Amino acid sequence: MLYFEDFVVGKETLGRERYPVTEAEVREVGQRWDPQPFHVDPVAAEQSPFGGLVASSVHLFAIRVALSNRGLDEPAAAVSALGFDNLRLHAPVRPGDELRVRVVVLDRRVSGSRPGLGIVRTRSELLNQRDELVFSDESAFLIERRP
Amino acid sequence: MLYFEDFVVGKETLGRERYPVTEAEVREVGQRWDPQPFHVDPVAAEQSPFGGLVASSVHLFAIRVALSNRGLDEPAAAVSALGFDNLRLHAPVRPGDELRVRVVVLDRRVSGSRPGLGIVRTRSELLNQRDELVFSDESAFLIERRP
Repeated sequence: MLYFEDFVVGKETLGRERYPVTEAEVREVGQRWDPQPFHVDPVAAEQSPFGGLVASSVHLFAIRVALSNRGLDEPAAAVSALGFDNLRLHAPVRPGDELRVRVVVLDRRVSGSRPGLGIVRTRSELLNQRDELVFSDESAFLIERRP
Repeated sequence: MLYFEDFVVGKETLGRERYPVTEAEVREVGQRWDPQPFHVDPVAAEQSPFGGLVASSVHLFAIRVALSNRGLDEPAAAVSALGFDNLRLHAPVRPGDELRVRVVVLDRRVSGSRPGLGIVRTRSELLNQRDELVFSDESAFLIERRP
């Protein structure tokens, strides 16, 4: 189990797993949560400024969270997400792309009100198969201190 | 079609649709993108600080985007999401809750580099059936000006 003490400020982790972005999933997630033409309709998407289907913000955030969870060597004793800041879409993500996550620990502190817990802030980035930055965010979460 | 000019600063829209949060969907979205025990395992969730299953951040962000899309009277001429800030989880969302969205236009400006487009910033909130704030974020998007 990973605890507060394992999240050392400045530590960088590059996920090993590559997430294949398929046309089927871009359209399915788009249809379910964000049915803009450029997420769901290949013909309309060609006429859009993107020139083709692109993954939705919901899809990218979901992939980011999934890869961050899986990228850890063991489970983290996370108690709760506190929030997310600066979600940015840096470049379009298209069917056929493969994404990896890179996570950097930004800072951490022990909770003032609950000394058995700590708060860790990380920056997470999604990179495509050309190592281009396509998505990033910063998140804070509450995590147990080592018993 | 809704254009840049229709997003008047200060305008507030309360969605009519209520989104039922089901245990099946909490667990399915959790299993797929964020398999923490308190999103996927009812028994383990009872032992967690939440005292039961709660919806994941990915799920809440997805519901927020879905309800914002559907809450508009007609489609918006949105070109692209630019980013999201200050995503906050204010209170746990549990199976059986029903969520509505409230959207407030924070500010807007014409794009400097592309005068046919504008940038609109909104704050979006999810409220439960007791009108408690459970989730909020701020987002910016690029949208066409009225032709």
